[in-house]
Amino acid sequence: GRPPESTDFANYFCTYAYIYHQKDMLEDHKRTGAYYQAVLSNKRQFQGKVVLDVGTGSGILALFAAKAGAKKVYAVEATNMAKNARLLVEHNKMSHVVEVIQGTIESIELPEKVDIIISEWMGYFLLRESMLDSVLVARDRFLAPGGALYPSHASIFMAPIRSNLAAQRTSEFQNSMEGWAEFLHEMQHYYQVSLDVLSDGYRSEQKDYYLHTSQWTDTHPQQLLGPAAPIIKYDLNKLTLDELKAPLKSEFVMHMTDGGPVDALCGFFDVLFKGSDENPTDNEIRLSTAPDPTGATHWGQQTFPLHPPIDCAPGDRLRVSVEVTRRADNQRLLHVKAAVSVEGNSIYAEQSKTPREFRWNIE
Amino acid sequence: GRPPESTDFANYFCTYAYIYHQKDMLEDHKRTGAYYQAVLSNKRQFQGKVVLDVGTGSGILALFAAKAGAKKVYAVEATNMAKNARLLVEHNKMSHVVEVIQGTIESIELPEKVDIIISEWMGYFLLRESMLDSVLVARDRFLAPGGALYPSHASIFMAPIRSNLAAQRTSEFQNSMEGWAEFLHEMQHYYQVSLDVLSDGYRSEQKDYYLHTSQWTDTHPQQLLGPAAPIIKYDLNKLTLDELKAPLKSEFVMHMTDGGPVDALCGFFDVLFKGSDENPTDNEIRLSTAPDPTGATHWGQQTFPLHPPIDCAPGDRLRVSVEVTRRADNQRLLHVKAAVSVEGNSIYAEQSKTPREFRWNIE
Ligand SMILES: Nc1ncnc2c1ncn2[C@@H]1O[C@H](CSCC[C@H](N)C(=O)O)[C@@H](O)[C@H]1O
Ligand SMILES: Nc1ncnc2c1ncn2[C@@H]1O[C@H](CSCC[C@H](N)C(=O)O)[C@@H](O)[C@H]1O
Repeated sequence: GRPPESTDFANYFCTYAYIYHQKDMLEDHKRTGAYYQAVLSNKRQFQGKVVLDVGTGSGILALFAAKAGAKKVYAVEATNMAKNARLLVEHNKMSHVVEVIQGTIESIELPEKVDIIISEWMGYFLLRESMLDSVLVARDRFLAPGGALYPSHASIFMAPIRSNLAAQRTSEFQNSMEGWAEFLHEMQHYYQVSLDVLSDGYRSEQKDYYLHTSQWTDTHPQQLLGPAAPIIKYDLNKLTLDELKAPLKSEFVMHMTDGGPVDALCGFFDVLFKGSDENPTDNEIRLSTAPDPTGATHWGQQTFPLHPPIDCAPGDRLRVSVEVTRRADNQRLLHVKAAVSVEGNSIYAEQSKTPREFRWNIE
Repeated sequence: GRPPESTDFANYFCTYAYIYHQKDMLEDHKRTGAYYQAVLSNKRQFQGKVVLDVGTGSGILALFAAKAGAKKVYAVEATNMAKNARLLVEHNKMSHVVEVIQGTIESIELPEKVDIIISEWMGYFLLRESMLDSVLVARDRFLAPGGALYPSHASIFMAPIRSNLAAQRTSEFQNSMEGWAEFLHEMQHYYQVSLDVLSDGYRSEQKDYYLHTSQWTDTHPQQLLGPAAPIIKYDLNKLTLDELKAPLKSEFVMHMTDGGPVDALCGFFDVLFKGSDENPTDNEIRLSTAPDPTGATHWGQQTFPLHPPIDCAPGDRLRVSVEVTRRADNQRLLHVKAAVSVEGNSIYAEQSKTPREFRWNIE
């Protein structure tokens, strides 16, 4: 197979070539443990099957599949990590089952169709990295009819939270603009050059950075002001590549258990291992990245700060129209827009005539 | 002109498109002030001249040249920062003198030869970023015979220092390997997978990271154990692109004022503004990034940790054979090798039969 295109390598694949980074994922035991359970508690589904691991990294999921009794596992990895995967497979005495193939899944060939595709493709807020594209390509190219995807389903959620992030960011932004004013003064004083004309550009750069960028957080369930609402639920057996590449538009309602101010929205995801209709799992496993008092997975949650916070009362509802698009400058990064209005019997709902608009980059 | 090649954009040019980053450079007043002095204290050299600013960024050096009385300034910038440079030039009422051209210097055309090329192209340890290549291309394409480069000369230095960096890095490396041992144990225990076979790979990754990577530091002159020695001195009028791209090999001697242990070598540079033989400056300006009690420029110094430290006595000499090469995976990054032996009358010199070998990446 071919290596990734060079820009994409610089932007995306480079880190995956380090054992250090693979270790970060492997030692996220909620993650690795969920895949382990999904495979090893469903041995019947893997027994004698042909499996494809899309983006095998260290080779771990391919090894799980082999342990579960797969007849053959194709383990495809774009980066040089493939060499380590091969070492690991040999060392764990599975070379007769697992075949490591280096190249992008888009460019490699397989000698046969497969019964199961397993892959750990999820990014922040599920969709960052856009690696699900490659899994759908793999499905369309290599999955036999009736074959199963592991995971088979994925959902994105949002919840209203209390968080000091928005206030913190606002004050950092203000500090930064004060620094700019000083800087202008210095430049004038030292070099008789006026940089005023760049102030708008600087402000908008800094706003993008401080106010319009979501952040990795380990959110505590206590911060939730109401239950999380699903934005979208994907059935990966049915989802098409075109649907996935199109802007994701969704309207949903969040019920406020507590009153506001709502400082931020908290976004996270889960995936489900249900197998396929023809070959369902015996044990349905869920990997959730929801706020958890025992600590977050390596994905954490994405916190989207609200400037200024949204006022509302217990019992109110937040109606959210959300749009998630890929960034024009790098399709592996995301842009999120949301329009939020307050509904209910409170004074806040009454005052919320037009929805408020927000936007964020997921870096 | 053409935009940069896309991989190079991802790796190198991207940050320069932010005002934030240009500001970082502008407010380094030792830097910007040195260029200001080099131009404004040598007005006679700029009066009525045609100037080329290679990589104009915000446009600042082009404005200095215009202020000094240049007849015409071509200000070339690869990134979208060119648009801001144009705004700044207009706002400072210099549009009749300064013409901003967006594109790489390698791809643009000029309608005439220029008398002066000014550029701020220096990276960490002088050569990181390899932007001097572009200045030499500009010189060979556009500088009139007898024309001057600003700066005209550049030198790299190394000094023996005392620093806790090496000890710190060694202990971080050891911690990291202890973490790896625990990780192996977990992986075996939770998933019955043995990752021993990756230990060598991980160790060498972590060694590269902790022990074979130089670091930005603001070194205090008190840390110096002897005066800095020049590694190389470039006359930019004469240096060829081929010479610059070839590995830089140099042998030099550092005189120990104080005794060891020498924990690290400290690398830095200076540049000189002397004009050309035909058109020398009236006031020779030097921009130095040597350790300074009043604080470092934004380049700081590069500290190269020595593991383990080198023992030596006051009066000893360290003989260093150094080789600086471009990294194969990214030619804008550097790799440094050094062979060090102790000479003198001390017991350490006697024991130093074969030179000790060191290597570092400059990230
Ligand atoms: N299109 C593609 N073709 C092949 N490999 C890809 C790919 N896109 C991403 N990858 C690889 O997929 C891996 C995702 S990270 C998951 C690694 C491993 N399966 C685990 O669960 O621990 C990375 O190693 C990345 O390099
Ligand atoms: N080959 C090339 N062609 C055009 N611009 C280049 C270039 N290589 C680097 N640059 C630009 O050169 C600048 C170097 S930073 C210096 C900026 C400015 N002259 C100042 O002194 O403040 C960056 O803005 C970078 O984008």
